[in-house]
Amino acid sequence: MNRQVLLRNAVTAVPVEADFEVVDAPMPQAGAGQVLIRTLLLSLDPYMGSAIKSRHMSAGVKPGDLMPGEALGVVTESRHPDFAEGDIVTSRAGWQAYSVADAPTPLLTGMAAALSPAATKLAPDGRVPLSAYLGVLGMPGLTAYGGTVDLLSPRPGETLVVSAATGPVGSTVGQIARNMGARVVGIAGSDEKCAYAVDRLGFAACVNYKNAAWPDALADACPDGVDCYFDNVGGGILQGVMGRLAMHARIVLCGAMEQYNSPTVLPGPNLGPIVGKRATIKGLVVYDFWDRMPHWRRIATDWIASGRLTFKEDRVEGLDAAPALFARLMSGRNFGKALVAVAPDQA
Amino acid sequence: MNRQVLLRNAVTAVPVEADFEVVDAPMPQAGAGQVLIRTLLLSLDPYMGSAIKSRHMSAGVKPGDLMPGEALGVVTESRHPDFAEGDIVTSRAGWQAYSVADAPTPLLTGMAAALSPAATKLAPDGRVPLSAYLGVLGMPGLTAYGGTVDLLSPRPGETLVVSAATGPVGSTVGQIARNMGARVVGIAGSDEKCAYAVDRLGFAACVNYKNAAWPDALADACPDGVDCYFDNVGGGILQGVMGRLAMHARIVLCGAMEQYNSPTVLPGPNLGPIVGKRATIKGLVVYDFWDRMPHWRRIATDWIASGRLTFKEDRVEGLDAAPALFARLMSGRNFGKALVAVAPDQA
Repeated sequence: MNRQVLLRNAVTAVPVEADFEVVDAPMPQAGAGQVLIRTLLLSLDPYMGSAIKSRHMSAGVKPGDLMPGEALGVVTESRHPDFAEGDIVTSRAGWQAYSVADAPTPLLTGMAAALSPAATKLAPDGRVPLSAYLGVLGMPGLTAYGGTVDLLSPRPGETLVVSAATGPVGSTVGQIARNMGARVVGIAGSDEKCAYAVDRLGFAACVNYKNAAWPDALADACPDGVDCYFDNVGGGILQGVMGRLAMHARIVLCGAMEQYNSPTVLPGPNLGPIVGKRATIKGLVVYDFWDRMPHWRRIATDWIASGRLTFKEDRVEGLDAAPALFARLMSGRNFGKALVAVAPDQA
Repeated sequence: MNRQVLLRNAVTAVPVEADFEVVDAPMPQAGAGQVLIRTLLLSLDPYMGSAIKSRHMSAGVKPGDLMPGEALGVVTESRHPDFAEGDIVTSRAGWQAYSVADAPTPLLTGMAAALSPAATKLAPDGRVPLSAYLGVLGMPGLTAYGGTVDLLSPRPGETLVVSAATGPVGSTVGQIARNMGARVVGIAGSDEKCAYAVDRLGFAACVNYKNAAWPDALADACPDGVDCYFDNVGGGILQGVMGRLAMHARIVLCGAMEQYNSPTVLPGPNLGPIVGKRATIKGLVVYDFWDRMPHWRRIATDWIASGRLTFKEDRVEGLDAAPALFARLMSGRNFGKALVAVAPDQA
């Protein structure tokens, strides 16, 4: 029989053990071109908390469904020429003792490859334990690598902050950044985790967010502000770090632990789509472009003259009329550029 | 006497006329190196609604203070060799009939120049009215230019959405983008404004957000999603547009009209610091980096072997133990990469 863990019921808050059901199912059979895999190690990851609420791009899990997940296993039967009994593979086997998988489709890349039902043969390096291929050498490690190297690109001497700092992603983020010469400050949920971040991971500091004064502690730990923030949590932690940004800061939104456990989407702008769409949000301050005013005026003047740019004014006469116009402006009841002709005879 | 408009009292909601006080003050005197300016035109801009709540970087206005603002005026007395009577200038004169200003300090650039107490001499182009230098050729126009050209960089055929679409910033954003070959969709607060955006500004479509079904209308107007969003409003409009983003969308946060009128900072992540710090928020999806897993594993393996990268595991034995570990993981009570040794004898 094949031991499996299924989702028992819909989950709306923090999942508890009783939300799952352990069953014995019939042994799966490898079809032509497939392999049968005995699971050795199964990875549990926070995204699954989102998947069981059907809010994750990788999987939507309904009551009665097998729980999804990355696993490392050994091939016990091969019906594909590229695999042999005893091969060590990774696959999206789910929470079960045995699974079948296809061989990889070479044309698939990126997300399509990552989510495909194929087994990937490993050539384990004897210097690291097998389990590392589900963690630091697996999806969490790759998350840390892409986000830190490509998206945040910390420069030597910059301050990088990472939340869930001792987790598989956060601890790798911090160490990559440290190896790149950045000053790393962690945010974690216990003094024990914080001590580990500083003593074992080589972070410059680590702040325990369970202390109400953690924003002050973060400010102390980041006297020049936060250049890079790798966010694994969202919500109040993201909000707190945003209060300490340095100029031209970069933020990577990766995890949203606060939201995974919430029965409803949290209030305020939900930044989830920014992740899903790999979107970029940029802050704009006009003053930064001030020196290019002449350039803009030259172009815009020509455009206005040639009819390619038009504008509209909402004009009142006399300073005394300014407050009423402003009140209209702020309530959205004006139409056109609000202008006060202070000397209406002359302009 | 010099007519002035002062802030009368603290403002916590939408400002009304009675929040301001019109007074006659003594005529200001130009000191050595200064000019006396008679205001011809005064610009009223939404950022002032933020300034009177002391939430804007340019000015904090307290009860009794002169209202700040950009103005266009004529020099009536010059005590600086670079200026002559009759010169047309712009300056941060505030809401008053007469003001004094310094000559520009040549070394100042960018924000420092923009907020300096100096007058800038204009060489008006006869093809455009003077008032344009406070609008489309002034701060609002430059805002549109920097945000559209530099930060959003719409490519031909892309869909660009702009809110407050018929305002001085939004109407210029949309026309610049249209002139760059983008398909422009506006969001505005009345059918009249929407008709103007389509008929006069050349937008492909415009959605009236006062209709409850405006997100559906936006979806219809953006069948391939939103590539670029220039946000002048924040809050619910930003939220709604985020539900329609195309892959690799770019968002520029410029205005936050919803927040300017709120007595308190609105719930949820406050994106204000993103603007103030010119920060970038990027969404991260690990699957996009999947093809570089071998590269990462090579580096990380060497790092682990040489002690430059460490990791920690939180491991249980047997599939039956998976749910409890997952519950610990999702409540933040685990420490280390969560792993289930499904075949503990072998891994």
